[in-house]
Amino acid sequence: MTEDFRQQALDYHSLPTPGKIAVALTKPANTVEDLALAYSPGVAEPVREIAQDSDNVYKYTAKGNMVAVITNGTAILGLGNLGPLASKPVMEGKSLLFKRFAGIDSIDIEVKHRTIDEFVDTVANIADTFGGINLEDIKAPDCFEIEQRLIERCNVPVFHDDQHGTAIVTAAGMLNALELQGKAIDEAVIVCLGAGAAAIACMELLIKCGAQREKIYMLDRKGVIHTRRDDINEYKQLFANNTDKRTLEDVIAGADIFVGVSGPDLLPPDALALMAENPIVFACSNPDPEIKPELAHQVRNDLIMGTGRSDYPNQVNNVLCFPFIFRGALDVRASQINDEMKLAAVHAIRELAKEPVPQSVLEASGVSHLEFGREYIIPKPMDPRLLPRVAKAVAQAAIDSGVARIEMPMGYMEV
Amino acid sequence: MTEDFRQQALDYHSLPTPGKIAVALTKPANTVEDLALAYSPGVAEPVREIAQDSDNVYKYTAKGNMVAVITNGTAILGLGNLGPLASKPVMEGKSLLFKRFAGIDSIDIEVKHRTIDEFVDTVANIADTFGGINLEDIKAPDCFEIEQRLIERCNVPVFHDDQHGTAIVTAAGMLNALELQGKAIDEAVIVCLGAGAAAIACMELLIKCGAQREKIYMLDRKGVIHTRRDDINEYKQLFANNTDKRTLEDVIAGADIFVGVSGPDLLPPDALALMAENPIVFACSNPDPEIKPELAHQVRNDLIMGTGRSDYPNQVNNVLCFPFIFRGALDVRASQINDEMKLAAVHAIRELAKEPVPQSVLEASGVSHLEFGREYIIPKPMDPRLLPRVAKAVAQAAIDSGVARIEMPMGYMEV
Repeated sequence: MTEDFRQQALDYHSLPTPGKIAVALTKPANTVEDLALAYSPGVAEPVREIAQDSDNVYKYTAKGNMVAVITNGTAILGLGNLGPLASKPVMEGKSLLFKRFAGIDSIDIEVKHRTIDEFVDTVANIADTFGGINLEDIKAPDCFEIEQRLIERCNVPVFHDDQHGTAIVTAAGMLNALELQGKAIDEAVIVCLGAGAAAIACMELLIKCGAQREKIYMLDRKGVIHTRRDDINEYKQLFANNTDKRTLEDVIAGADIFVGVSGPDLLPPDALALMAENPIVFACSNPDPEIKPELAHQVRNDLIMGTGRSDYPNQVNNVLCFPFIFRGALDVRASQINDEMKLAAVHAIRELAKEPVPQSVLEASGVSHLEFGREYIIPKPMDPRLLPRVAKAVAQAAIDSGVARIEMPMGYMEV
Repeated sequence: MTEDFRQQALDYHSLPTPGKIAVALTKPANTVEDLALAYSPGVAEPVREIAQDSDNVYKYTAKGNMVAVITNGTAILGLGNLGPLASKPVMEGKSLLFKRFAGIDSIDIEVKHRTIDEFVDTVANIADTFGGINLEDIKAPDCFEIEQRLIERCNVPVFHDDQHGTAIVTAAGMLNALELQGKAIDEAVIVCLGAGAAAIACMELLIKCGAQREKIYMLDRKGVIHTRRDDINEYKQLFANNTDKRTLEDVIAGADIFVGVSGPDLLPPDALALMAENPIVFACSNPDPEIKPELAHQVRNDLIMGTGRSDYPNQVNNVLCFPFIFRGALDVRASQINDEMKLAAVHAIRELAKEPVPQSVLEASGVSHLEFGREYIIPKPMDPRLLPRVAKAVAQAAIDSGVARIEMPMGYMEV
């Protein structure tokens, strides 16, 4: 990162006012008459209506379009555990993306706590304030237990984006890559370098898409996760492979898929060379991928590759998913974001990449041509078709799976 | 309340969109370049700056202008304990008033909890998110302990508006009324009908303004609070009077001041007739005061009277205080809102009522004439001079009392 960009980023955050979000009024508040409706005495009327039927809170308050972005600051971006206060620019950034991409009002909440119990209690106690909760930048393995317990305790959708947003976009791109490479997902041998929240969620979702658990080799800092290791938590345990293979080189020989959610330059060119024909490499470490695309393509000209970066083709970017999955969930008042909704998002994102790309999307994305193929398996973040396609698919899946609490609005997301 | 007004209030809250507040972006978020500054990778820069020096959170995030309005819904307006969800329109209304009157971004948080401990923990755990915390609609006596414990645990100002906002505006009006009636506060005999949060806070603040505790008679539902009662909590205990008087009639004979924070029509005309010459009556029960002003003036033509209503002179309205006391506190980054700041607000509000009223304020307030006197002892809510006067006085008091963490901005609130 250049000093110039660094200063631009600091200026963006501090000038002319600190931060990126504010609160705005959606109703008139100019006259004495306005205020008599907005506050005392008029406000007593919606209070009474909600006291009689709690669903009226969606009719008379901002709850139904309000998502909290909640963190404890234990895994901020790739920067580590810097505490709740330091995470605030990221959380406000997430709120900005919710508003920008899906018109969702979003506010950040930074939580300090001593135990998982205390974090869960804190979030559960304030959850009714919001229409949904996006958990963010919480370290593994705490994040798994935290999310599961909050899903059980909250009446609104709880979604840990670092897990599921990443997994959904990865799966969408992966299914398209497999199709282009002529491979069947249930036969694919998969190497997953990294065993954190995103890695585990990605593999779980690929399994739901058809991948075979026993064909997956997950590696943490100590190498392959196998059934004879006794140093792994219950979440990694689910990926303990009954194998004698121990190193990246051992498992990558003949593998069809490499998913990296680890660190820079951790996939050596020699290892890539060992993969099966027509391999797929998603090197998602950011900003520096597990192998540089230029180098990877030198080693393998039969490769399809994705990264986490916007300046290479096939960017795996959560923003393709989380604004729209919440949009769909909120709009049918889903009680949770279940697997059916996640898979609906996968397929909606996947299918969009196969459609012709309008000129406006090309311009917004700063490219001259995009056509479904090795260099375009995932839609671009600035594609405005993502909102209607993904939100509608997610809303429909919520209805079909029985977690929606209201019907889809008439003409929902028709464009 | 008429059916027509009731429907207007419901429509206001539900049309065209539910609720009254939304989140807005304060920075550009249109292009790929914008988003690279707002989120990854640019956002890492302010994160690092805050990790190095936590004060930088005020430079790079919205924290410094963000106030949470927090409740548990146990004492919603005069409607009672209807739970957190039903309180949401009131809390959003408070957020609306913060923005409308003082440009403060404010978001509501409704907390469910089983114990005072759990409520305090929950709020303390999320407090760093905000620049200040406005507690609202929490029942007495819980509110006293909750506020005190949160003040001790939080790094940002915590202010229970139902107590102190009411007390500050009451004290401002009372000091002006005493001046007009030619009475000294330290000689005044005070009857306070009601012993809840607002009543106790009003009396404590009047004592800080010079009133004598032993000249105060506070009454709860069982009558005068006296030293031989054994059924009163520790907060009422502070007002236990060593007296043989037991009823309202007993204590109001010869009293100079009546403050009502109780219920409709609880001050009988015969009792008012017993007060000393030139009495002062603040009948703040809302919407129906302890005695109707028309009736009161028939009984006593030497009376100065205030109510909680906007359609009578001398409205005791919290909105004269809370937006501006937070404005001043935030602007010098005060660590708390202490007594010095509360008293500064009292005097700023009081003094403003003595100044000539501009035509624009008359028009906004819907009156043809306002001049300091029996019918105008408290400024009007729509008076735009409140913001600079009160905020500046509060900020200066924070600095003078040593709780400000930054200096007053150059030319602060000069108009």
